[in-house]
Amino acid sequence: MKALWLEDRTLSVRDVDVPSPALGEALVRVVRAGVCSTDLELVRGYYPYTGILGHEFVGVVEAGDDALAGQRVVGEINAACGACDTCIAGRPTHCETRTVLGIVDRHGAFAEYLSLPVANLHRVPDHVSTDDATFVEPLAAALEIQEQIDVTADDRVLIIGDGKLGQLIAQTLALTGCDLTVVGKHLGKLERCSTFAATQLAAEFNGAGFDIAVECTGDPNGFKTARAALRPRGTLVMKSTYAGRLDVDASAIVVDEITLVGSRCGPFEPAIELLEQGKISVEFMIEARYPLEDALRAFEHAARPGVLKVLLVP
Amino acid sequence: MKALWLEDRTLSVRDVDVPSPALGEALVRVVRAGVCSTDLELVRGYYPYTGILGHEFVGVVEAGDDALAGQRVVGEINAACGACDTCIAGRPTHCETRTVLGIVDRHGAFAEYLSLPVANLHRVPDHVSTDDATFVEPLAAALEIQEQIDVTADDRVLIIGDGKLGQLIAQTLALTGCDLTVVGKHLGKLERCSTFAATQLAAEFNGAGFDIAVECTGDPNGFKTARAALRPRGTLVMKSTYAGRLDVDASAIVVDEITLVGSRCGPFEPAIELLEQGKISVEFMIEARYPLEDALRAFEHAARPGVLKVLLVP
Repeated sequence: MKALWLEDRTLSVRDVDVPSPALGEALVRVVRAGVCSTDLELVRGYYPYTGILGHEFVGVVEAGDDALAGQRVVGEINAACGACDTCIAGRPTHCETRTVLGIVDRHGAFAEYLSLPVANLHRVPDHVSTDDATFVEPLAAALEIQEQIDVTADDRVLIIGDGKLGQLIAQTLALTGCDLTVVGKHLGKLERCSTFAATQLAAEFNGAGFDIAVECTGDPNGFKTARAALRPRGTLVMKSTYAGRLDVDASAIVVDEITLVGSRCGPFEPAIELLEQGKISVEFMIEARYPLEDALRAFEHAARPGVLKVLLVP
Repeated sequence: MKALWLEDRTLSVRDVDVPSPALGEALVRVVRAGVCSTDLELVRGYYPYTGILGHEFVGVVEAGDDALAGQRVVGEINAACGACDTCIAGRPTHCETRTVLGIVDRHGAFAEYLSLPVANLHRVPDHVSTDDATFVEPLAAALEIQEQIDVTADDRVLIIGDGKLGQLIAQTLALTGCDLTVVGKHLGKLERCSTFAATQLAAEFNGAGFDIAVECTGDPNGFKTARAALRPRGTLVMKSTYAGRLDVDASAIVVDEITLVGSRCGPFEPAIELLEQGKISVEFMIEARYPLEDALRAFEHAARPGVLKVLLVP
């Protein structure tokens, strides 16, 4: 089958074997996949990874589970052992020996087929489009914030970042009824949030007193802006990873009693439900579609500044 | 009156005017005061401050409040305006224009007299000794942790630091019934925790999988040790401030979904109650007493490595 292979920071479309699902896994024919910032980071060598990239996908189950056979599915990306202390404690996304689709020791979704544990798969409801369902994984990541902290209508919430993840986080947090401000670098993208949030260009922003700030720029400056805008005892949700280290004024964190919360993968079912209920708009984020054989061009496109979602169609 | 004055990183015992309490404030005659690590940091120029040092004290109310007149009191160190958004929101210890006893714009307790708002004062119960009551302020700071996060008997908790604050935190957290480990650099101090906690020398420690870690060493290496020992989704309580910045692997915080919580001043009443009930031992921490005129020698003593509490007696 065709697949987009990463090795030594170099991408190539190559022919590889169709995966052989292990016990408990299903063979999934990929019908749509999304390029994520993490994919771009992997290409930059941010994490070491060799193999097929891709972790946002919609597919059709070809083998491995009778109930799901022929159904459209999306898949949780962390494949857990189910037996370690972390799994037993109910934190399978942090399993000590986990593999992660297209990120850690498991071939990913930029291919004609992939294999994932059946337990990771979720059926896509009939009236959720395949394009929309490609956003379930990042939408779940957005919803993880509300698994970790309470966000209520009483909270003044700031989102730093108007990109792919920022757009999803903004929509999910707006549903709480909170007093929401989105700060970003792109007027057009901020405009997308203006019906449910106050918006401001990063260069002009000097807000303060926020109860909660969510950082999703992938840029250490975003962290600084978020930190500066928090009230004492406020909460800073760290949603994006950075290449390199972060320089933190720890004493100010202590004196102001700030809480920092790292936030990663989230729950799929609520994400699917929100799409099914039409409460989240994602189509506007799709900037381009490329066939899998043009994956290199798709990556070039996705890497341009300000580009939202680029899809691959195997 | 005699007072210990800090100016340009230099301490001197000098004669100054007895404070004139403002409206709503009481004049307190200091009978005992404790030297804290923050005092040592202030002398090192960590924060800019000029004036009388000292914020841990027991005193007797001389004027300003009829009900408290002649009573032994301890005092909360943050004097709040009561009118700003932060005060109105119920966070007076973070008041935007607060003064802080012996730390920010308010003369402190290393003097014969001090002045504090009556609202900040708490009567010391008759059968709590004056020595013991000197520990109410740091004990309250230890209890702040449980104001911020839940600690239960199910939690594996790590304390990094066996110093003054570490000893108090260890005793307060032990009361939760949690599975407690204290890591420090001094066998004698660790021994003090061995009846209610597992103890280990920092040089030999390589524990992992803790639900909660409390960092109270004042050393960035303590942060690193605490971070490394946490399980995914664990909580790191930052209890000590550092001169300089902290270098943090932000991506690992995100990937492991770690929560960092800055923690400072805490509630006085529960601290007084614990001392009254005899549930916390503090006397063993007193290493020396000095008269106020020997405050410079007291500071030299307090600055020696491994020294616990040095008291001043005006």
